[in-house]
Amino acid sequence: MTVTKKSWQDISAGMIKHREETIAAINPAVPEPPKDLPLNVTGIPAQLLPKDVISITETPTETLIQKLASGQLTSTAVTTAFLQRAGLASKLTNCVTELLPDRALDRAKILDDHFAKHGKTIGPLHGLPISVKEHLSMKGLDINAGFVSWVGKIAPDDALILKLLRKAGAVFYVRTTEPQALMHLETDNNIYGVTVNPYNTALTSGGSSGGEGALIGMHGSCLGIGTDIGGSIRSPAANNGVFGLRPTSFRLPVGGWAATMIGSEHIIPVIGPLSTSLEGVKVFMKTLIDQQPWVYEPSLVNMPWKEAPSATLLRKSDGKRKLRIGILADDGVVKPHPPILRGINTLVTKLRESPDIELVEFPPYKHEEAWQIISSLYLADGAAEEREAIDASGEPWQPLTDFIIKDNPNVKDLSISELWKLTQDRDGYKAAYNQHWNSINTTQPGPDKTSEVEVSAIPEMDKMVDVILTPTGPGCAPPHNCSRYWGYTSQWNLLDYPCLIFPTGLQAGSEDKAEEGYKPRNDQDRYNYELYKPETYVDAPISLQLVGRRYEEERLIEALEMMTDIAGMPFTT
Amino acid sequence: MTVTKKSWQDISAGMIKHREETIAAINPAVPEPPKDLPLNVTGIPAQLLPKDVISITETPTETLIQKLASGQLTSTAVTTAFLQRAGLASKLTNCVTELLPDRALDRAKILDDHFAKHGKTIGPLHGLPISVKEHLSMKGLDINAGFVSWVGKIAPDDALILKLLRKAGAVFYVRTTEPQALMHLETDNNIYGVTVNPYNTALTSGGSSGGEGALIGMHGSCLGIGTDIGGSIRSPAANNGVFGLRPTSFRLPVGGWAATMIGSEHIIPVIGPLSTSLEGVKVFMKTLIDQQPWVYEPSLVNMPWKEAPSATLLRKSDGKRKLRIGILADDGVVKPHPPILRGINTLVTKLRESPDIELVEFPPYKHEEAWQIISSLYLADGAAEEREAIDASGEPWQPLTDFIIKDNPNVKDLSISELWKLTQDRDGYKAAYNQHWNSINTTQPGPDKTSEVEVSAIPEMDKMVDVILTPTGPGCAPPHNCSRYWGYTSQWNLLDYPCLIFPTGLQAGSEDKAEEGYKPRNDQDRYNYELYKPETYVDAPISLQLVGRRYEEERLIEALEMMTDIAGMPFTT
Repeated sequence: MTVTKKSWQDISAGMIKHREETIAAINPAVPEPPKDLPLNVTGIPAQLLPKDVISITETPTETLIQKLASGQLTSTAVTTAFLQRAGLASKLTNCVTELLPDRALDRAKILDDHFAKHGKTIGPLHGLPISVKEHLSMKGLDINAGFVSWVGKIAPDDALILKLLRKAGAVFYVRTTEPQALMHLETDNNIYGVTVNPYNTALTSGGSSGGEGALIGMHGSCLGIGTDIGGSIRSPAANNGVFGLRPTSFRLPVGGWAATMIGSEHIIPVIGPLSTSLEGVKVFMKTLIDQQPWVYEPSLVNMPWKEAPSATLLRKSDGKRKLRIGILADDGVVKPHPPILRGINTLVTKLRESPDIELVEFPPYKHEEAWQIISSLYLADGAAEEREAIDASGEPWQPLTDFIIKDNPNVKDLSISELWKLTQDRDGYKAAYNQHWNSINTTQPGPDKTSEVEVSAIPEMDKMVDVILTPTGPGCAPPHNCSRYWGYTSQWNLLDYPCLIFPTGLQAGSEDKAEEGYKPRNDQDRYNYELYKPETYVDAPISLQLVGRRYEEERLIEALEMMTDIAGMPFTT
Repeated sequence: MTVTKKSWQDISAGMIKHREETIAAINPAVPEPPKDLPLNVTGIPAQLLPKDVISITETPTETLIQKLASGQLTSTAVTTAFLQRAGLASKLTNCVTELLPDRALDRAKILDDHFAKHGKTIGPLHGLPISVKEHLSMKGLDINAGFVSWVGKIAPDDALILKLLRKAGAVFYVRTTEPQALMHLETDNNIYGVTVNPYNTALTSGGSSGGEGALIGMHGSCLGIGTDIGGSIRSPAANNGVFGLRPTSFRLPVGGWAATMIGSEHIIPVIGPLSTSLEGVKVFMKTLIDQQPWVYEPSLVNMPWKEAPSATLLRKSDGKRKLRIGILADDGVVKPHPPILRGINTLVTKLRESPDIELVEFPPYKHEEAWQIISSLYLADGAAEEREAIDASGEPWQPLTDFIIKDNPNVKDLSISELWKLTQDRDGYKAAYNQHWNSINTTQPGPDKTSEVEVSAIPEMDKMVDVILTPTGPGCAPPHNCSRYWGYTSQWNLLDYPCLIFPTGLQAGSEDKAEEGYKPRNDQDRYNYELYKPETYVDAPISLQLVGRRYEEERLIEALEMMTDIAGMPFTT
């Protein structure tokens, strides 16, 4: 018997057909968008979907949770609404790999029946639909991680994070796109094609969790799961104007995903939420950590979710200390585009008026060196696994896969000695950056207060910066195949600092003039500078990043709540 | 100009001469022991040292701290007493690389003056002398890590842990021996020779922190610092009848030590205390963690020291739940010698009587596979660094260095792909062992209580084992060059579980008959079985190990407090 190997094109066609069938199976039917579409498609759902679907899908995540918990909404109604809107979002942005109407509605019915019978929820996410990036295992479903050759691999079990979310009451109803090899800050693979940005479909949705980003940006989901090793949660969150959190490693369970580089621990990939609301991010973290996931996944840190007041940054009620924000507007390598700088300036101007906030410039510390180190550690086997997984099907290499693997001079098959040397460089850089953080606006390390007992110089904590405000990238969502500078996100993967992405509410526009006569600092800076034309970026969300110290997710969220409150975000243009 | 390279013998002679000079500098003079010594030299100090020196050095660590804090004792008096006893301990067991009388007494005077002037301490360890393993950097002093070729390397700064302990008031007065390459469960190098066991000088002090073990066993120190990647804190603690803690990785700062394999993170080496008392272990941990070391060393976990009641295991006052102890008396690979089994049985018999404790058999889970993995990951560069560091001086390879490097079939210069595969094996083993722990005496995972909402099976926590009681090795301290089975300690390095070593108070003796007609399971088991003769091990302390879940050092200590209390330890033979 001869087996004819399917071409990669046939495999792709089969997967797209399956995806379309799952969308076609939604009842009521997902409407077909008109042929002539504006670049900004975020307004289309309101034109095509029933009012109640719009109302449900645009309800803040935390309010949806409350309405489900009080019986004001059924899980069936909410799940049906999100299935419809996700189907439409996919027709508009190509963000979905499949809908799961049968699984989701069966589950919703069980939850609704339980609520009807017992009058109470089964957990804090009772009935809430959650979207899931494709490469997180769902038992019995394909997991391909963006490689054509992996199509047909079937997940033997659910990822642990899904088991815990399910136990808390979640309903999984949609799986979302990701790029080839999971290693782009965009989303394009040879199975499903390009996922575009709903605010401007000529721009990228970001990546690698770009399916999540576009879907949530379209309100086709209110809460979804992404993964991040260089910016993969944050780039799509920023590009699509939603919230996203890259937690410190080993706080959330990562067991059960499909990817290359499994076993590599030089740079730790993490899992985290994207959501239409900051509360969505918070409830996701709290719900998982309250279940003590370290009991099931022993690599995790046994660290409870800290609720205020123990995690409270000092606020108005306590005059002793202000929230101290370091402003890192430009990493010194690639200067951000005008809309990003406008976003930071607008926010900083508002914050400056508050007596509860202290702003301090946070100079970059050798961010170029950080990229050297991290880009050498990512693919320390010379990207052997990626090459094999791509070439096995004959699928073409994507330009951004070339960029990060073939055109990246730091990708080498290292020896163990070289690896250890790089790991030392990494740890040395981390130590130096930490010292840098400790030194900002602190009295220089010098004679201690108790100098008569000759204590070695250790900096004092009470004057240190709490969080850093910085861009998520060197611009808003760029056109396709142009996301070639990772530094604003990968910097924090190297350091393993938690990062929170938030939309300012502002959007790029014609007022963001290009800087005349700018002299680029280097090739990367030149590429980015030349990319910028105000008309290219129209309507792109202006999002920013807040960075905290390791394991301080709770304070990071609280800091953003405080900043939002004080500055009156979201801003309106 | 020609430089004549010194022979390794000359280098050794120079270092020993220096050591003897530092001992000779102590005032009052360290007495010379008699020529004819019994095998058990623990009684010698009481014969040779003044009563007040004996009284101070045999005071429990926590009481010393209190007396220093209340002004009942000066740091100068306490430091002088420990300098004398440490000098004598070194003459008896060869456990010291140098005494630091000038530094220590200068520091003690400053602390005493501070106390006299202000009437208060500078920190929780005010005036307390602490001993330090040689390879932990002390600014301006040699750091050789047991390699002759490294003699003459000078530490540029203090290790962070020393800075923090100093800030808390500690006085560093002595540095202690370690084996060649730091990779023996004994202590023998070509600089200082063999460190022997004070309870029976024909036996080993253990290693690699064997200088600490012997010194503290001799009451030449009440609290010292060791390091552990395969048993190096625990073997010496056990062999010398003192307490020792191997914490979970990333709780205590490790910055600033000299060793090979820096940059390797496949198996994480840790730092931890050895002490004459359990309280000494506890105060060491609390003092360091209360200083938030993660602010200075960013790899550390931001996790405060948990005080009761938040860390309380359920005790007598709460009838709802007992302390659940898993008994793992034999790892299934190498059967422990009769004294160890007597130690476990004696303790278990006492504990069994208590209504507050539940004992359950904890079967081993593939401990042989764990050794395969960890011994492949230790020296993943094929031990290139160790070979170079040893051969550079021409010093001979120690038999136990041969054992772990040249005779170890798992030592290979791995490729990155092989490394990642082994790391996956490691993580798979960790996950399986965790599942094993979760399954002991638990209702088998099955339909959940809320099965109507089809929750995936996740085990319940309320019936799980809290701690495991197990040997620290396959016997008490063996004769020199015989510590060839690491499994009872390295098992927990692989899993990164915290381990607490405690003396039962019992000692090996003629009542511990060899098992007649035993059929060994394998070569390692045969080696260990044939090693055992009751007369070889006379007076060797019988110590045991308590193992907890990751990051549960506080509960581990509390569990041992509870067990000590209930069983009436230390036992008297």
